[in-house]
This record gives sequence, structure tokens and C-alpha cells, in this order.
Amino acid sequence: MEKITSVHNEKIKKWTLLHKKKYRDESGLFLVEGEHLIEEALKAGCVRAILFDQTCPFAFEHLIQVTPEIMRKLSANVSDVHLIAVCAQTQKEPLYRRRAVLLDGVQDPGNLGTIIRTAVSFGYDAVICSKTCADLYNEKTIRSTQGAFFHIPLIRTELVDALKELQKDGFVISATALDSSVPLQSIDASEKMAFVFGNEGQGVSEEIQRLSDQRVRIEMDGFESLNVAVAAGIIMYRFQ
Amino acid sequence: MEKITSVHNEKIKKWTLLHKKKYRDESGLFLVEGEHLIEEALKAGCVRAILFDQTCPFAFEHLIQVTPEIMRKLSANVSDVHLIAVCAQTQKEPLYRRRAVLLDGVQDPGNLGTIIRTAVSFGYDAVICSKTCADLYNEKTIRSTQGAFFHIPLIRTELVDALKELQKDGFVISATALDSSVPLQSIDASEKMAFVFGNEGQGVSEEIQRLSDQRVRIEMDGFESLNVAVAAGIIMYRFQ
Repeated sequence: MEKITSVHNEKIKKWTLLHKKKYRDESGLFLVEGEHLIEEALKAGCVRAILFDQTCPFAFEHLIQVTPEIMRKLSANVSDVHLIAVCAQTQKEPLYRRRAVLLDGVQDPGNLGTIIRTAVSFGYDAVICSKTCADLYNEKTIRSTQGAFFHIPLIRTELVDALKELQKDGFVISATALDSSVPLQSIDASEKMAFVFGNEGQGVSEEIQRLSDQRVRIEMDGFESLNVAVAAGIIMYRFQ
Repeated sequence: MEKITSVHNEKIKKWTLLHKKKYRDESGLFLVEGEHLIEEALKAGCVRAILFDQTCPFAFEHLIQVTPEIMRKLSANVSDVHLIAVCAQTQKEPLYRRRAVLLDGVQDPGNLGTIIRTAVSFGYDAVICSKTCADLYNEKTIRSTQGAFFHIPLIRTELVDALKELQKDGFVISATALDSSVPLQSIDASEKMAFVFGNEGQGVSEEIQRLSDQRVRIEMDGFESLNVAVAAGIIMYRFQ
């Protein structure tokens, strides 16, 4: 088994760079922390190496024992982490059967991860993100999915193209909007449905709203303000 | 108008301590950052002083001009903040008419704030927190409410007592639970309803589940994992 004891080791220096999107994009790698998430990553077959500083609960071909100092350098968390996996960005091919989620500029990694988690729990086929969304491989995104990250196709693409493809395939696209929208209760289920949720401040962009088949709003009483992951949960539940 | 230029000023030193729950509890004060939240705090009448380092958009009897250095010391955020209000912990008296939320050990301030925001948007009467919940006056809690914090009675108390009081008052209490629970769709609306949501890892405690009138689960497909603020949103929407 490999052992690394220096924080100046070339591999460690390279992997530390994976906290930045630029290096994740260049290398096609990302980091996953903690036993539960690594277990899900192993099931998904995307783990390339597992680093540990105490004991490792996993039997895996590429284990590396490192020092607590290296762990602290590699970890995105303040609290102690004892297991970190280096993973490859291998995405599942989507199969659009009946339900999809489109995200138009969701910027908070916690919201993005929470929406992915909800999509898996309600059996959605895929989550399609605009290029203006938070990075899928951000450590907070992955952590917020609670492992769901590895159980659903996640696409990052031009949203306009993805929306038109889904429409050709018979999907009815509903975009969330406050103005000129119909209440959620008034919408009937279709065989194939896709829902668009927007940026935390701006909502769904004008262009995407215009291309969508309908605009929908969640009925509210007064304050009219919902977190995007909560709004997505309410709509995804209704049409799961 | 008062001016403070030293980070060693006694008031500044005292207010900096308000990042810690202990000092918030002792002083009955808390800090609020940014124009939008301070505007809501002003409407609620709980602002005691407003500190600014550039210009202040508010006419208020107690304005204090400070340096950018003091702002950075007082702010909980990394990015630049130019307005901070010192506020008093004055809570609205609850009036239980038809809908309430009880939180049993919700630990993440972001989740707590998001649930408060949702409760206001769906017209709930109050959010009642166990003493094991995240602190209401945590900066992240307040920020996650997006201003809703100042629009609803927020109670921190012994949850068992609060639950029994609500039952005496005719409220039907539903606790979320995976086991021995009925699907959400099967529950009919009652005139007075209260919902209990639990800790992110452990859910609602056994004792609270036992005292509740029914246990409810959100129907899911496979992964069976929802963020507590999303679960709360789905149920609060259904019975708003």
C-alpha cells in the first residue's frame, strides 16, 4: 500500500488544486469526503484513489495512507476528515422517460445539491443544469446531495438546446414564474413533464420562460418568497 | 451623529461578541447585516443602532459611522458589508389560529432559516423550536429567512410542553417519520394542524413521535432522503 507523508508530494499538491473548478475541469477529477459519500462513489465506480490517515473501512485497489496534516490540506472542511477519495467525473447517460428537472442559474451549491437529492428521491430521470449554475463537482454541492449525486444523470449544457430537445421528445415544459403564471394546483399531470427552476435572485430567465410551454407559480399567502430548493421540492413531489 | 474609528472602542468590542450565542443570550441583542434585512428589522421595530461605513440609506435616530475595518470586524461575512444593525431580541406574541410548525432539533441554521421563510410564505401562525435547534439569532439563520425572520412569532421552548398546549387548544399534531407512518396523501386537512420536523440525522425524537396524534411520511421512490427544509416545504404547502 502506498504511503505519503509530505504535504509537498506532487500528487498531494495536484489534488489540493481540485478545490478549484478550473483544475477539476482540466483534470476531470474531483474530491469526495467522508465514509458515506465515498461508499456511494464506490458503488458508482468513479473512485480512483482513497486516502486515509487512520484506518480505511474500504477494500480498494488504490489505498493511500497519509498524515493528518495532508488530510487537513486536502479537506474542504474545518472539522476533522479521515477519508478522502479522488474520483473521476464520469456521468451517467440520461434516459428521458417521464420527468426531468432543468436548472437555470441556480448559484448556491447547497441549493443545487439539495435539488439533486430531491430529484433522486422522487425518481426523476435527470437534472439538467445551465452553464451558469454552481459547479456540480463543488464539494458543497456533493455534500448537500447526501450521496444522491451518484444516482442520477447530471448534465451541464446549454439550457435552450436541452429544453428544445425535451419538447421534441414530447415533454411539457413548465417554468416557475411569479408573473403571468398559473397556480400549481391548476396544472394536470402529463405523461412527460419537465420543470425549470431559476436563479435565487432573478428566477428563470426571460428566454427560457418564453420557450417553455407554461409558467407556473406556487400559491402563497403574503410574503411570496420561497427558497428555490423548497419550491423545486414542492413541484417535484406533486408530479413525481 | 456618532462616529467610531477604533476597533478597540468598547461598544465595538461588545458588539463583536454577538457572533457568539452566549453573548447574544446575555445581552438580548443580535446583529443583522445588509440593507434588505435591516429594512425588515426596522419595520419590526427591533433596531437599536445602525452602523455604516459609506452612506446610510435609512433615516434613524441612532446612526453610527464607522471605518471599513470595524465593518469587517463586526461582519460574519467574507465579502464586503457596509451596513450592520444592532437589534434587540423582541419576539412577537403568538396567536395560534390554524397552522403551526414545531422543530425538534433542526441543527443547521440554513435549514432553520429556510423553514421560517416557508412558514411565513404559507401563512403559518408560528415556528416553535426545541432548545436543541440551531440558534434563532445565528447570522446564517436570519440570512436564510430572507427577512421573513421579522414577520412571524418564533418561539424557543420545551417542545413537549408546547405540543401538549397545542393539543389542548384543538390542534392535530402530525410528526414526520419513516416507520409506522401514513402517506401524506392520505391525510385530510383539519381546522387546526401542527407539523413536527426533526433533526437532520435523527429525525423527530421518539418521545415527540409518541405524543403526536399521527405520523406522516412523504411518499418517495427509492432513495428515500429529503432535506428537512424541503420536507417541511412540501407538507406546509399541502396544508397552507
